[in-house]
Amino acid sequence: MAANRSIDNFWAVIPAGGAGTRLWPLSRAGAPKFLHDLTGSGMSLLQETWARLAPLAEERFVVVTGRAHRAAVTEQLPSLGPGAVLAEPSPRDSMAAIGLAAALLERDDPDAVMGSFAADHVIADHEAFSESVRVAVDAARADWLVTLGIEPTFPSSAFGYIHLGEDLPGVTGARAVRAFVEKPSTDVAEGYLATGAYRWNAGMFVVRPGVLLDLLARWHPEFAAALRAIAADVSLLEELWPTLPKIALDHAIAEPAAEAGRVAVVPASFAWDDVGDFDSLAGLLDRSGAGTTVLGDSSLVRVFESSGLVVPRSGRVVAVVGLDDVVVVDTPDALLVTTRERAQQVKEIVAGLRDADRHDLT
Amino acid sequence: MAANRSIDNFWAVIPAGGAGTRLWPLSRAGAPKFLHDLTGSGMSLLQETWARLAPLAEERFVVVTGRAHRAAVTEQLPSLGPGAVLAEPSPRDSMAAIGLAAALLERDDPDAVMGSFAADHVIADHEAFSESVRVAVDAARADWLVTLGIEPTFPSSAFGYIHLGEDLPGVTGARAVRAFVEKPSTDVAEGYLATGAYRWNAGMFVVRPGVLLDLLARWHPEFAAALRAIAADVSLLEELWPTLPKIALDHAIAEPAAEAGRVAVVPASFAWDDVGDFDSLAGLLDRSGAGTTVLGDSSLVRVFESSGLVVPRSGRVVAVVGLDDVVVVDTPDALLVTTRERAQQVKEIVAGLRDADRHDLT
Repeated sequence: MAANRSIDNFWAVIPAGGAGTRLWPLSRAGAPKFLHDLTGSGMSLLQETWARLAPLAEERFVVVTGRAHRAAVTEQLPSLGPGAVLAEPSPRDSMAAIGLAAALLERDDPDAVMGSFAADHVIADHEAFSESVRVAVDAARADWLVTLGIEPTFPSSAFGYIHLGEDLPGVTGARAVRAFVEKPSTDVAEGYLATGAYRWNAGMFVVRPGVLLDLLARWHPEFAAALRAIAADVSLLEELWPTLPKIALDHAIAEPAAEAGRVAVVPASFAWDDVGDFDSLAGLLDRSGAGTTVLGDSSLVRVFESSGLVVPRSGRVVAVVGLDDVVVVDTPDALLVTTRERAQQVKEIVAGLRDADRHDLT
Repeated sequence: MAANRSIDNFWAVIPAGGAGTRLWPLSRAGAPKFLHDLTGSGMSLLQETWARLAPLAEERFVVVTGRAHRAAVTEQLPSLGPGAVLAEPSPRDSMAAIGLAAALLERDDPDAVMGSFAADHVIADHEAFSESVRVAVDAARADWLVTLGIEPTFPSSAFGYIHLGEDLPGVTGARAVRAFVEKPSTDVAEGYLATGAYRWNAGMFVVRPGVLLDLLARWHPEFAAALRAIAADVSLLEELWPTLPKIALDHAIAEPAAEAGRVAVVPASFAWDDVGDFDSLAGLLDRSGAGTTVLGDSSLVRVFESSGLVVPRSGRVVAVVGLDDVVVVDTPDALLVTTRERAQQVKEIVAGLRDADRHDLT
């Protein structure tokens, strides 16, 4: 099998949701982070996700997004047919979004294997990613719910972890999952890293649609039945969608299925980032950690004895003097100044703007 | 004599020069700091200087400024006749600027006493200022070169100091000047403050024009002769001006005259600030030092766990998260982010922009 060949019956499912509040003022409710070029590649995170998956899935894509973003998604991904973009009537978390895609694929392609990958993650090493997906598909064809486990680079307390089990019989490069564990303290995470037996849970799942729905039916039978009913008669979508539980796929299926011995993991070696905030983005863009990184036109930025991240998006000159690890994000209607350390708290500003009815800015 | 009466034959001379480079991007070569409202009073520093002096000088004003700013000065001070604004052909430091005003006043009013006060200083207590000027005028009529000595509030290494001498015979509230001393180290300045015998030199001088020119003639006879020649025939201005030495009044006259026992000082009690940089401005606007001070429309500023100075002048929302003593100055074509501690180094940015031929921004 050639390494660059597509995978038969492999469907790429891209949940494109989330506001990216901690990336304000770049990311807004009307234009969330997956629609933005955050890496300077010339492509949005959504387009990068598509480009990473297209060699494997060819034209077999399903993007699940909010109604408000359907037009932007189809504009950014013109090669997708209109049927490839599902608009959720309202946000109901990842189980409903991914489950809807699964129900439609189960209906349309009995041999389908789906891989679900969020629209706002960054993975630069496409080759290593493809290799991991190929292994995951092999395991998925053997009816495992398969996740990709990211090798931790530091003891993060922001991610959940996957506890690795035994090698999977018959699938080289995959292992059983002993358990999913919730976001730990940094101390506990350090212990995980020391063992070498833990991976970050990046929420990437590869599975046969029917297996996914059967697992859902085991713990949430009405949920699975509703999704399958929608697939059988899409006119039921408006009626049934609001009745679906708001629950993450991890909690609905992955955690109980791991306890039941039904989940496999492909320990992956590629670097991965979910670009959660400007600290994460700064680290992603400049792994050396020294100097000032500019996301945009660097001729607009004048720096004296400073370091950090500057995003000049208003056309104005941005000057920074004597600040380390600073974050300056300059947009036409709003400016943010913070530090990498405090970047998580940008959401407080967004909350304040909402409280002040400044929805034009959020 | 009523405290609010004007002073006979008192002429207010306002040197309106200096680029205010350390207040970039508010202050620009084309619109230096004296043309800006830096206190939120609704008046520019120049207008505040005029308003402070008008009760004493009535309409007896001479403003000396660069040619590029003459139109802006006359626009900001419409009550001055056009003859009250002298435009220097080129910048030649304070001795030439103030000396030119002195030569014209010596010619026009034999009983004149002139008081020279920079256009970009801030003095909130007009009453205490007026009282000090009245005492200074009394001493000036007795042919002293009189300066106002500001009571130091901290051991600044950014100002020169005046060493107080004996009480002046016949003028209550004035003392002889023992010496002017150059900007000291902070350690030396601490010693000065401990003695109580030192005042900050704010460059404010009150003197009879003829006395000023005679003192100049003693140490720089050609300089004084050239100024008097211009006063006698103003058509010589263009020819003689470029020949005048570029020297500060302090060095040309005040320091040698103090050694010669010709200088008096009125120890003043009013608070004074030369608004040299954004640290100084922040301290001036918020003496408590806590919280965030906004110079401008505070509804544009959103702050979370921060302190410092924010100047929103572009109409955009400015958000600051988790930075103490920060300085954010937002203008339509340029943005500055620095700290109060590093505010002096803003001039490095301006120098860099000049080197890059971005004169549109300086």
